[in-house]
Amino acid sequence: MAPSLIDDLSALLAPEQLLAGDAALPFDRDLSDGTGVGVPLAAAFPSSTEQVASVVRLAAKHGVPIVPQGARSGLAGGANAVDGCLVLSLEHMTGILSIDVADQVATVEAGVLTYDLATAVEQVGLFYPPDPGSWQISTIGGNVATNAGGMRCVKYGVTRDFVRGLTVVLANGDVVRTGRRTVKGVSGLDLTALMVGSEGTLGIVTEVTVALLPRPAEPVGVLAAFPARQAALAAADVIMASERRPSILEFLDRGSIAAISAFEPTATLPADAEAVLIVQSDEPGRTTGDANEYAAIAAFCGATTVEIGRDKAGVEAIMASRRALHGAMRAVAGASLNEDVSVPRSRLTELLDGIDEIAERMGMPIATAGHIGDGNLHPIVAFNPADVASVALANETYQQVIGLAVSLGGTSSGEHGIGTLKQAHLDAELGPTLRALQREVKRAFDPEGLLNPGKKL
Amino acid sequence: MAPSLIDDLSALLAPEQLLAGDAALPFDRDLSDGTGVGVPLAAAFPSSTEQVASVVRLAAKHGVPIVPQGARSGLAGGANAVDGCLVLSLEHMTGILSIDVADQVATVEAGVLTYDLATAVEQVGLFYPPDPGSWQISTIGGNVATNAGGMRCVKYGVTRDFVRGLTVVLANGDVVRTGRRTVKGVSGLDLTALMVGSEGTLGIVTEVTVALLPRPAEPVGVLAAFPARQAALAAADVIMASERRPSILEFLDRGSIAAISAFEPTATLPADAEAVLIVQSDEPGRTTGDANEYAAIAAFCGATTVEIGRDKAGVEAIMASRRALHGAMRAVAGASLNEDVSVPRSRLTELLDGIDEIAERMGMPIATAGHIGDGNLHPIVAFNPADVASVALANETYQQVIGLAVSLGGTSSGEHGIGTLKQAHLDAELGPTLRALQREVKRAFDPEGLLNPGKKL
Repeated sequence: MAPSLIDDLSALLAPEQLLAGDAALPFDRDLSDGTGVGVPLAAAFPSSTEQVASVVRLAAKHGVPIVPQGARSGLAGGANAVDGCLVLSLEHMTGILSIDVADQVATVEAGVLTYDLATAVEQVGLFYPPDPGSWQISTIGGNVATNAGGMRCVKYGVTRDFVRGLTVVLANGDVVRTGRRTVKGVSGLDLTALMVGSEGTLGIVTEVTVALLPRPAEPVGVLAAFPARQAALAAADVIMASERRPSILEFLDRGSIAAISAFEPTATLPADAEAVLIVQSDEPGRTTGDANEYAAIAAFCGATTVEIGRDKAGVEAIMASRRALHGAMRAVAGASLNEDVSVPRSRLTELLDGIDEIAERMGMPIATAGHIGDGNLHPIVAFNPADVASVALANETYQQVIGLAVSLGGTSSGEHGIGTLKQAHLDAELGPTLRALQREVKRAFDPEGLLNPGKKL
Repeated sequence: MAPSLIDDLSALLAPEQLLAGDAALPFDRDLSDGTGVGVPLAAAFPSSTEQVASVVRLAAKHGVPIVPQGARSGLAGGANAVDGCLVLSLEHMTGILSIDVADQVATVEAGVLTYDLATAVEQVGLFYPPDPGSWQISTIGGNVATNAGGMRCVKYGVTRDFVRGLTVVLANGDVVRTGRRTVKGVSGLDLTALMVGSEGTLGIVTEVTVALLPRPAEPVGVLAAFPARQAALAAADVIMASERRPSILEFLDRGSIAAISAFEPTATLPADAEAVLIVQSDEPGRTTGDANEYAAIAAFCGATTVEIGRDKAGVEAIMASRRALHGAMRAVAGASLNEDVSVPRSRLTELLDGIDEIAERMGMPIATAGHIGDGNLHPIVAFNPADVASVALANETYQQVIGLAVSLGGTSSGEHGIGTLKQAHLDAELGPTLRALQREVKRAFDPEGLLNPGKKL
């Protein structure tokens, strides 16, 4: 009898690098709501690019689809197993291969936690800006797969803006190095940029070279509470139009403030505010001046409370409220669906009005918070996971919010990815010609369709 | 008799929009050295995306290759005609379609001069950072095709970092809009990023939506002259490692200084210096402080002359010297070849040493200047265009400098493109697997190979 894929993998990998059958089930999904989860054949944990290439070659030989995984902290189902697939986890590849101070680049294996990368480069005076909310648990490879964002992106840009080069295992097991170590370079088509955000559908990223910046100043932060949402939006507009680009500009709506205040009564939030802005500056030599300016803008726009966090502890106290939101919303009814819509900033009022209307019509609590400087907000729908009707309403609400964002010239995903959860909206957002072209590009990379099938495209 | 492509185009376009036969010859090349120029069949000047689509459909019907052109200011042959091609010029598409202050984006037709775009947005308090040396004569469409850089990229990034979305006519005449108007977005593969820098090989860009920033401060600039090149490189390293990222960090070597001083004796350059750095800050509230800091760093590293341009006129006087370089080098022997190599910053000494060695061995004057903060330098080879031996030596010198840069982990092109001039080095730089993959991607966009054949890939 010809050897099976499991037989072949067993000959290649150490026993602890291969889980077959039921043992692979714990690796069947990410942190999304669990829709569209298949049963994996096995899960492999290679420890080097060469091993990844060997695993991919074997899977290709057996015609078995591959689902690449990082930390499985995704929120869109991008790492969910499909039936009969081989889960290929990069979590054993955690080497920080080099940090180059002169060239301001670092090269790390895909399974390195983003926070570990950021901490390691900080120790030599450098700075990796993208800071997705999950960065303490998510991997740089996963961040590349989804083009992850974060709070600091309003000033510094997203993951794509910092990826210089990638080591990629292609669908046939060939290994390529895309990109460059130089700051600029235009040789060849920019396959690095194409790989970023492709959610494992074009190749498997095993190593990432990122650009770094010199470490900025210790941030100074402002919390401003407003009696009307429109006043907060106006203040955000003025701050974004100013020459003093904030390093963070976050928004909390009334629902968010109420949930956080109920969940953590010690929070620094005025519980009766209609909206809150959190603003930071990390610009060397200007942090205090910037914070004073942001505070003045907020006051001018009608803020009733303005607090400035002038040291690390003060800034932390402000940020702790923001970070409590997800836990607070899960506490409302047991679970939450986290959205990630983006609209042009000029459409934010329509988006927020529309979300309120959807929440009321559906009878579902939605708290909306996020990166208002980017127009990228995270409406969070609270639901009861034990109640089938509540789950269905939550999913319907989630889809309605996405439809609203797309109708406003926005997108179903600013930074979390499409995965399995948001494909229904791609036709409306992209149109059939662009989708067909994207499938042709996918075919150029993966003619047999074995890489993360059913995701993204 | 079946109608020819010219017949079909005549029916579609106004007489002034079509040049056939010899009349098209003035559109056969860009500003590179004229190698690899073919004879075009005709040149078309459509005035709208719809007309571009119609022209492309007709060319596809007749199986005629298309060479897209902007201002033909390129330096790598990317817009050179191939035999029997249709030149498709975007130069009639010069509309500034919208400038949106709230969303900080502008949408323009591809034929708009980059400087005109920058000036238009500046009038409403906004800022388009990429400033290629050619920006007064080059188009935004051409800048997108080559992913153009410029002096300010050391702080702000290159063209790609500012392109949000594109209107693209595909090889079959279909029109797609890639990208988004939102700041962030990860729906679908990032075909926008892939199009940028693809030199017209994947589609024809007709409209460009760019991200804008609030206008920075009026720059303050420093000119520092050093008695040794290594001292200037050390100062550049310290400046790049500092928290005060300069908005411009330019380098002139001894050959550049000598050529400029001979050409424009009024230049502000100390004619006997071994190296010069030009540094600017445009950071609001910090320009003077930054300039003082740069001046102190330069002095500490051994600069013998440090001048600060504190107002517009002072900054202009400093920049005028830098801008005189190309004319100065053409004056040396009648013509020049302008290179565009990039290396990791840690390899700059080896690059500059190697260029000196090549210049001496080949007996050809090379002046090296450029964006030292990015590691992107422009060695300029002076030659006598009337002397066949000099032309041959110049070309050989040019190729040797590229080979040197690639051997140092660098690239043959930081910002000018590959075109026809630099293809010999792509195998060494990219390797066969990556090149084959790029050709597959090209095929996904252009299965018949009609778009700018023989360029880039």
